[in-house]
Amino acid sequence: MAEKKLTATLLLTCPDRKGLVSLVSNFIFERGGNILDLVEHVNAEEQRFFLRVAWDMKEFNVSPERLTEAFLPMAEEFEAEWSIRLNRNKHRLAIFVSKYDHCLQEILWRHELGEFDADIALVVSNHPDLGYLAERYRLPFHLFPRTQENKAAQEKAEISLLEKNNVDTIILARYMQVLSPVFLQKYPNRILNIHHSFLPAFAGSNPYKQAYERGVKIVGATSHYVTDVLDEGPIIEQDIIRISHKDSLDDLVRKGRDLERLVLARGVRLHLQDRILVYGGKTIVFE
Amino acid sequence: MAEKKLTATLLLTCPDRKGLVSLVSNFIFERGGNILDLVEHVNAEEQRFFLRVAWDMKEFNVSPERLTEAFLPMAEEFEAEWSIRLNRNKHRLAIFVSKYDHCLQEILWRHELGEFDADIALVVSNHPDLGYLAERYRLPFHLFPRTQENKAAQEKAEISLLEKNNVDTIILARYMQVLSPVFLQKYPNRILNIHHSFLPAFAGSNPYKQAYERGVKIVGATSHYVTDVLDEGPIIEQDIIRISHKDSLDDLVRKGRDLERLVLARGVRLHLQDRILVYGGKTIVFE
Amino acid sequence: MAEKKLTATLLLTCPDRKGLVSLVSNFIFERGGNILDLVEHVNAEEQRFFLRVAWDMKEFNVSPERLTEAFLPMAEEFEAEWSIRLNRNKHRLAIFVSKYDHCLQEILWRHELGEFDADIALVVSNHPDLGYLAERYRLPFHLFPRTQENKAAQEKAEISLLEKNNVDTIILARYMQVLSPVFLQKYPNRILNIHHSFLPAFAGSNPYKQAYERGVKIVGATSHYVTDVLDEGPIIEQDIIRISHKDSLDDLVRKGRDLERLVLARGVRLHLQDRILVYGGKTIVFE
Amino acid sequence: MAEKKLTATLLLTCPDRKGLVSLVSNFIFERGGNILDLVEHVNAEEQRFFLRVAWDMKEFNVSPERLTEAFLPMAEEFEAEWSIRLNRNKHRLAIFVSKYDHCLQEILWRHELGEFDADIALVVSNHPDLGYLAERYRLPFHLFPRTQENKAAQEKAEISLLEKNNVDTIILARYMQVLSPVFLQKYPNRILNIHHSFLPAFAGSNPYKQAYERGVKIVGATSHYVTDVLDEGPIIEQDIIRISHKDSLDDLVRKGRDLERLVLARGVRLHLQDRILVYGGKTIVFE
Repeated sequence: MAEKKLTATLLLTCPDRKGLVSLVSNFIFERGGNILDLVEHVNAEEQRFFLRVAWDMKEFNVSPERLTEAFLPMAEEFEAEWSIRLNRNKHRLAIFVSKYDHCLQEILWRHELGEFDADIALVVSNHPDLGYLAERYRLPFHLFPRTQENKAAQEKAEISLLEKNNVDTIILARYMQVLSPVFLQKYPNRILNIHHSFLPAFAGSNPYKQAYERGVKIVGATSHYVTDVLDEGPIIEQDIIRISHKDSLDDLVRKGRDLERLVLARGVRLHLQDRILVYGGKTIVFE
Repeated sequence: MAEKKLTATLLLTCPDRKGLVSLVSNFIFERGGNILDLVEHVNAEEQRFFLRVAWDMKEFNVSPERLTEAFLPMAEEFEAEWSIRLNRNKHRLAIFVSKYDHCLQEILWRHELGEFDADIALVVSNHPDLGYLAERYRLPFHLFPRTQENKAAQEKAEISLLEKNNVDTIILARYMQVLSPVFLQKYPNRILNIHHSFLPAFAGSNPYKQAYERGVKIVGATSHYVTDVLDEGPIIEQDIIRISHKDSLDDLVRKGRDLERLVLARGVRLHLQDRILVYGGKTIVFE
Repeated sequence: MAEKKLTATLLLTCPDRKGLVSLVSNFIFERGGNILDLVEHVNAEEQRFFLRVAWDMKEFNVSPERLTEAFLPMAEEFEAEWSIRLNRNKHRLAIFVSKYDHCLQEILWRHELGEFDADIALVVSNHPDLGYLAERYRLPFHLFPRTQENKAAQEKAEISLLEKNNVDTIILARYMQVLSPVFLQKYPNRILNIHHSFLPAFAGSNPYKQAYERGVKIVGATSHYVTDVLDEGPIIEQDIIRISHKDSLDDLVRKGRDLERLVLARGVRLHLQDRILVYGGKTIVFE
Repeated sequence: MAEKKLTATLLLTCPDRKGLVSLVSNFIFERGGNILDLVEHVNAEEQRFFLRVAWDMKEFNVSPERLTEAFLPMAEEFEAEWSIRLNRNKHRLAIFVSKYDHCLQEILWRHELGEFDADIALVVSNHPDLGYLAERYRLPFHLFPRTQENKAAQEKAEISLLEKNNVDTIILARYMQVLSPVFLQKYPNRILNIHHSFLPAFAGSNPYKQAYERGVKIVGATSHYVTDVLDEGPIIEQDIIRISHKDSLDDLVRKGRDLERLVLARGVRLHLQDRILVYGGKTIVFE
């Protein structure tokens, strides 16, 4: 197999002003980089600029190690929030689960197929049930049972484990525990959750039951970044499926599983490809 | 053009028990009726039975005038809520509008095409703006300007007008006034509204603005019967359209218009074909 | 766990005439059966009647063994094509695969979750690649490599295996061989295939490549019964996903996998619940 | 109302090479232009570059009249196919219709609402039926009845009319005549058609009948540019709607109308905003 080419991806947001695309693309061009993909967005109302640009590093005359340093002066001039990632520095994932297997199964299966260019470092759970599935894919499975009393201690142990494993992204694949603000602050816009409703409808617990009782004709699922207000984090992706009066609550759960799997997987893929910027509680998704 | 055949449609709900389909279909068969369409539904949880059956009256040996009387004993035995309508007794509609034209335009255009087998008796509005559109389709346009003070009086005048015109169904085609409980009680499950969101998300005013600010990736529309709790009536039909960060609030309004038109029109068609039963705040829609 | 109740499901089609629903529902009611679900359809153009009815056998006064015999006279009078199945006589499946795992994985996972009320008897393949997956779910895996020369002999051996295992339904889960008319005649309307396009568009080989080259904006998948004209069998279920110029051929394959899995699974579920009647090369799907 | 700002939009395709985004964005930046929207696409397989960029002309130091001349040297160096349009030079449309009103109604209604930033110069038809609708929107209606014999002469007269009215874009809104190659060559990638199927399925005449007879579970509509191979032009936009065995041919026609209207309208809007490039028989749609 041919060696994969080395690429860099810049995500950037700053106040809008003239010449931003020109200046950034020149930065790359002048140093010998070949732009593979560039997408920009201007929020006219807020006068805010957003950019994702990926380029081939092959003939780039700044070494990968010095890339961030080289871009820093321009970024500071723009007063930008930004990040650059080389594709060889793969994202490292931890997947948090409880008892439902479908989202974990989906993530692991897609990863095996090569849909996610990332390393899955480990699986964390508060229940032993899905250990077999982690094992099937030869992944470490770490059990952290949760009680009212041990929550803070367990989270501390989890964070320590994540740090030791250089995890940068956490996927809550139907993980049935609420993470504390302390935990969340460690991973801002790096914890993805799947909520089994079309947010903001049916936030909170038992969304299928809520949907069933309200008599809606469509149910949904939402992948979003987790913030310290439950189910109010920036929405990444949503999708829906039609239901009818013939569907029982069990049917909603069954149909919803298919949505949850797909919507979470799409969100994870977008995140791993550095296609998401968060601003003002919303996402810009560069598809 | 050949004369249209005379048909009857029964809508019925009652406690579930053995033999209901058999007894009702026998009632029709024994009297010479030919069933054209029969759909039933059992809510197992609530032990409740729902039925819609339409039949050809051609060789039916009870006269149309005596049909209700003939079915009454069976209905009483079942402790049923029910109605029978002959297709020759067309529904009579009033359309209530304010300033937005798209839903009115859609209803009138479809009616002209023959998609709604009903009579549109008149158009009511609290603004003069859409008079031209009613006129274009040769429909009476009645202006009832609303103020805080005149609300009760205007509603009384409206009801009087509706009764004089034998209106049985009211369509709120983006009518921007809240109807009083007194008005609503006159037309239970006979007033259809279009709400420009995916209920229960973004109930209340300015749903597109709410959706824009929340950063959802999909917007919706909902047609529902109006009850005295705002935006909480039984849902008839919903649909959605994808949006992205590129869409401004104006784009949401523009894209949403297409949804509103279609979702309201589908709801109206279902209602006019007697395909909807309401039970426990939800609809059974016999498609 | 409570014992599951015994139910019977009748699928029937015959020339339309008065009283069919009444006569069939009476047949059930008079013998003490409680109808759980009845759906009928009349094709007015062809004067053809279609029916699916399921009932509780608990107080039914004909023994399950004599059910078919008891219904025979009525069926003959109607000149009907029909079948009755008791839910305790589960469908028995064989799954045919080649090298792609996604459809097999999906079927096995859903079966394990209880979505399919059926027995999977075995997995057949012309390649050894997916043996591990059958093993993971503890299913017999039978390898029948195919060459131009051995086709007839291998099919004969496969049929013998299927008959020995009382298989009544075959699922082609991306099986890359064409079955002979001899094989097909053994299982009329009992072999389900997934075709990775929106039929009749892009029949034949390499539909994603065809779609890519044509520049369509949507790709689809189709589950259908297999007949001896390739990709022309009765369509059971279809679904689609949007694509754009940004999608490479590989992206189409990746996005299409999700469709194939869902569309095949839905088709299988409908078949296993006896919700499909085939008439005139088309399906009536009683959802 | 505030004066609308003057903007320019460049559409360009050329062989891919390093620095294209940089060079074009510099061209704009150096002359004082402010980029409002830039989208690029690289087809890696064909080493082809595609670009759409829109900028504010307010402080641009080249006069609008000299813009094309100023960009010419760069375009020639790139061996590009390209066009620049100032938003003040509105597209001028002719709408061709026959007897069906729904697509014409939709286009006219949306135009009135301001969804299309273009001038509708006139309506052409081979039948008098829709004259009333053109009149309603105060548009010239030109009748060109077609026979086998007069086709060439009528087309010549039509072209003359279009040229006199400076029409640059033609919308076939269910126009039931085939245009000759002579006509088509006058307006390459400037004639939009709506085909009432999910192309390439059911090309040719009577697609709803074809769909009904095949028993598909979904029907579609396709807007595309017209080329001299019937229904094979570059696809702009497609959408679908679910159907079932319950839908008659008339139902397909009715449901399909809604699709046709929306899919044509979306295609028209994309074209009028200069968001479409055609290359190799396919479209790049910069949404």
